[in-house]
Amino acid sequence: MPTAEKGGGSLLIAWQLKGKKVLIVGGGGIASQRVDSIMNTDALITILSLSASLHERTRKLITQFPLSIQLLDKAYEHNIDSTKLLDYDLVLTALDDFEVSKEICQFCREHRIPVNAADIPELCDFYFGSQIRDGPLQIMVSTNGNGPRLANLVKGTIVKALSGNEGAAIRKVGVLRMKLRERAPGVGGEVGKRRMGWMTRLCNEWTMEELGALNEENIQRLLNEGWENDRVPSPRALGVKFPRIHAPSSSNNIIPGFIGFCAGLVCIVTWKWLRQ
Amino acid sequence: MPTAEKGGGSLLIAWQLKGKKVLIVGGGGIASQRVDSIMNTDALITILSLSASLHERTRKLITQFPLSIQLLDKAYEHNIDSTKLLDYDLVLTALDDFEVSKEICQFCREHRIPVNAADIPELCDFYFGSQIRDGPLQIMVSTNGNGPRLANLVKGTIVKALSGNEGAAIRKVGVLRMKLRERAPGVGGEVGKRRMGWMTRLCNEWTMEELGALNEENIQRLLNEGWENDRVPSPRALGVKFPRIHAPSSSNNIIPGFIGFCAGLVCIVTWKWLRQ
Repeated sequence: MPTAEKGGGSLLIAWQLKGKKVLIVGGGGIASQRVDSIMNTDALITILSLSASLHERTRKLITQFPLSIQLLDKAYEHNIDSTKLLDYDLVLTALDDFEVSKEICQFCREHRIPVNAADIPELCDFYFGSQIRDGPLQIMVSTNGNGPRLANLVKGTIVKALSGNEGAAIRKVGVLRMKLRERAPGVGGEVGKRRMGWMTRLCNEWTMEELGALNEENIQRLLNEGWENDRVPSPRALGVKFPRIHAPSSSNNIIPGFIGFCAGLVCIVTWKWLRQ
Repeated sequence: MPTAEKGGGSLLIAWQLKGKKVLIVGGGGIASQRVDSIMNTDALITILSLSASLHERTRKLITQFPLSIQLLDKAYEHNIDSTKLLDYDLVLTALDDFEVSKEICQFCREHRIPVNAADIPELCDFYFGSQIRDGPLQIMVSTNGNGPRLANLVKGTIVKALSGNEGAAIRKVGVLRMKLRERAPGVGGEVGKRRMGWMTRLCNEWTMEELGALNEENIQRLLNEGWENDRVPSPRALGVKFPRIHAPSSSNNIIPGFIGFCAGLVCIVTWKWLRQ
């Protein structure tokens, strides 16, 4: 599939919001989804909404994570609140009031604050797509506004295709890379190349299931016996234990094999019987 | 898979850059990949790099798309160029010089210009992940910096799981939605709900292959016979013609079936022979 198609698309990016300040204007169902999205990122969230109109889920999150989310219990006020927008690194509106959303978006645009207005694509600097998360793995599906329903279907296809071991594998590989960098430090150059080459070989030779099943001891042995000798040992040689979940090829072969076997028996019996 | 995991992640977004000004500082291989990414978006690209050190691919793109990409044939100059950064909506550096990248990133951060420095994650507002594009469909895989190699493996799994019809299906559904909105206009309210309900039923009942095979005439009939009567006709009823590409179950059964057949023959012949 081509990745350098020309035009008509978006720039898909992973925005880093750790420690950044995010304002969500509105407190309903969509605002609550926005809170979920931002909770992924370790940002500091401020919700501007009357407490009375807060979604139940948001109310619970505020109680549960008081250091991450604070509530400004008031409605947005024209002119008073707009300059306060400058305090934020990202602004999301989820309001029924188009005019207020528009005012906020215009102010943000003039002051280079990235902004998204729920359900008003023409006011948005960026869109949210269908999202999948499994620990450190995040996947986003965007149809560039052509069909949110189809984005969800594609998301379903992707979730089905994943083994469910990817998040664990990526986490383990992250730990391994960190330990490898401690053992063979240095940015770029020969050692950097050797590190990258060895990691690539490992990721090519081991399956996601095998990588995901690594434990502390296996990782140590992988570094001692593998990295130090410039080779990639097999998971079995390192004693990596993992549950085999998928065995599709063998089970898929049993039924047609059995039918063929029976057909063979029937054929030869019939042939014998006809010859008698 | 959970989508509201707490912390440790990024905000994955589809950034809208149509008509926006993007500066790419650097002209090598990575800069050329950045040009590819931005070419997706209909942004106006400026490349700041000595012409002599331009990647061949970028050179070709500049010739091919002179209205989309312009070259400033000079190296970045401290103090002279930094204020010019204010002209841009997005800045990407792809340089060997860490100090220059750092200076550019600091200036951008102070002036709220989103910035990415290739290979220097700590300077970046956002990361690029592994990307898939099929027309209006865009998918991004991020491992949040834990393993670019694994992002590519996950990308491979996704590409294999997709039928290849998704882009076409999304494009056709986009056309259908537009025509439906012309026929039954209005934002929100009853008509909005009915439109959304009918589109959802259609997307649930038809496969991606069937949606992707829609043509002008089918779309007209779908609206006339389907929407007007509040029902979803079958693709066959509308005369939608589409090639069947996948028939994995039958071809996968031939070999084990044949082996079983042979085994059956051998068994009965051996049994007969032993009895003689």
